[in-house]
Amino acid sequence: MDVMRTGASMLGNLEPEGDFSNQLNSINRMIATMPSIVTYWYKFSHEGLDIELVNDEDTMAGHFLHILHGKQPSDLHRKVMDVSLILYAEHEFNASTFTARVCASTMSDIHSCVVAAIGSLRGPLHGGANEKAMELIENWTSKEEAKSNIIEMLGKKEKVMGFGHAVYSIKDPRNAVIKDFAKQLSELADNDTLYLVAEEVEKVMADEKKMFANADFFHAPAYFYMGIPTMLFTPIFVMSRVSGWAAHCMEQRANNRIIRPSAEYIGVETSEWVDISDRS
Amino acid sequence: MDVMRTGASMLGNLEPEGDFSNQLNSINRMIATMPSIVTYWYKFSHEGLDIELVNDEDTMAGHFLHILHGKQPSDLHRKVMDVSLILYAEHEFNASTFTARVCASTMSDIHSCVVAAIGSLRGPLHGGANEKAMELIENWTSKEEAKSNIIEMLGKKEKVMGFGHAVYSIKDPRNAVIKDFAKQLSELADNDTLYLVAEEVEKVMADEKKMFANADFFHAPAYFYMGIPTMLFTPIFVMSRVSGWAAHCMEQRANNRIIRPSAEYIGVETSEWVDISDRS
Repeated sequence: MDVMRTGASMLGNLEPEGDFSNQLNSINRMIATMPSIVTYWYKFSHEGLDIELVNDEDTMAGHFLHILHGKQPSDLHRKVMDVSLILYAEHEFNASTFTARVCASTMSDIHSCVVAAIGSLRGPLHGGANEKAMELIENWTSKEEAKSNIIEMLGKKEKVMGFGHAVYSIKDPRNAVIKDFAKQLSELADNDTLYLVAEEVEKVMADEKKMFANADFFHAPAYFYMGIPTMLFTPIFVMSRVSGWAAHCMEQRANNRIIRPSAEYIGVETSEWVDISDRS
Repeated sequence: MDVMRTGASMLGNLEPEGDFSNQLNSINRMIATMPSIVTYWYKFSHEGLDIELVNDEDTMAGHFLHILHGKQPSDLHRKVMDVSLILYAEHEFNASTFTARVCASTMSDIHSCVVAAIGSLRGPLHGGANEKAMELIENWTSKEEAKSNIIEMLGKKEKVMGFGHAVYSIKDPRNAVIKDFAKQLSELADNDTLYLVAEEVEKVMADEKKMFANADFFHAPAYFYMGIPTMLFTPIFVMSRVSGWAAHCMEQRANNRIIRPSAEYIGVETSEWVDISDRS
């Protein structure tokens, strides 16, 4: 996330937006470069590889999988990644989108707005639920083990990531879409355990807590079956969400009023002045 | 501003905050490096100079003026810069501080919060008033010229930067402080025209529009008399405000609730689905 934040900021130095009439070009460049920025960093810093960033893929989804694995992805993988990027592209007034809009309300440049939003998505209360879901379910080797462990966690009031949502109260409509693709991918894989474990966790959470899986939960097995390292789960969210953030900023800047709340002072009313030399 | 935004972000890559228990160290490093980052960039990109960044100044104000001019500043210059950095250090819930707090409310790292805030301060509706004030008053060579030009501008309903404030309704208490120092600096300079012009503009704005000069206005002549390029006025604001932003983020993260407003949908209620191939 730090790399994407710095990369987007640097792009604003190298190719400043200038006049807002260039906004679509600047946005396209950010969307286009994010997959390469983060994947290059990952492969270089974790595997010491200087990967090839040019190929003839005609979608962002295909390009990302191609540079990550160094070969053409299957049509199903391209499709699932494309769907995933669409599911994550926009989602109302979450904290990162709001950060972007507050920044845009000062009529700042689009790079500053996106950089600010990346910083917010980096926070553990916002992004990262799909990574946490993966870290949870990869521990278990069977449905039975998953079930007993989840029930134990719930008994200890531990939080299970990937469930519930600030906006939805009954279900997250994105879940069915990615869950279906995760199932398809598991059927083609050598080992369908991770999907079965995820399905069991979803069932236990519904039975025990009446909680539903959100969009993040089945992204964990879906990405796993496409060979995506867990550390890239939240960066993929960024790759996708740049489009949503940018759309909000375009709207904000086109019909703007600065977002500047007032503070209500609730501290002590008065305190006596003590010269610095007399303070204890 | 782009350089400071990228510099702060890069510092978050090189020296990640990690656990919040390191926050003071990360904040001190940002405060300490900002003057060098922006001054080095300015002197290198505008004058082709590879300036010396190490000296024995014991204040941020002294260090900044020393590296900018390549020599020890006078005691008065050190004092005025120090006062200026204090005046700009914190100012309630302006847009950049609010951006930082929204980012902090996701429990993100301190670098992300400060980077987000710099992006907001970059917007022309927020930072930049002292630069605009300078660009205005440097056009005039006498009080008389200033007066007739301001009256002409007001007649055309043009906005005069550096007047009025979202929080203050009668006066900006910071103005008297920096105005007094601007006057002292002008008396020691070869030419006091800029100060006299600024004073005249303040008088005309009070007489004609009942508007008061805010903290930004007399910063323009004060900085001018200290030989500071106009392009560095807003970056000085950043150098100072990092402390205020960081204090807000410490407060937010210590007693947090995520800042995530709800959106009220006011668009069309329903629209019929048209397959993409049938759209005109």
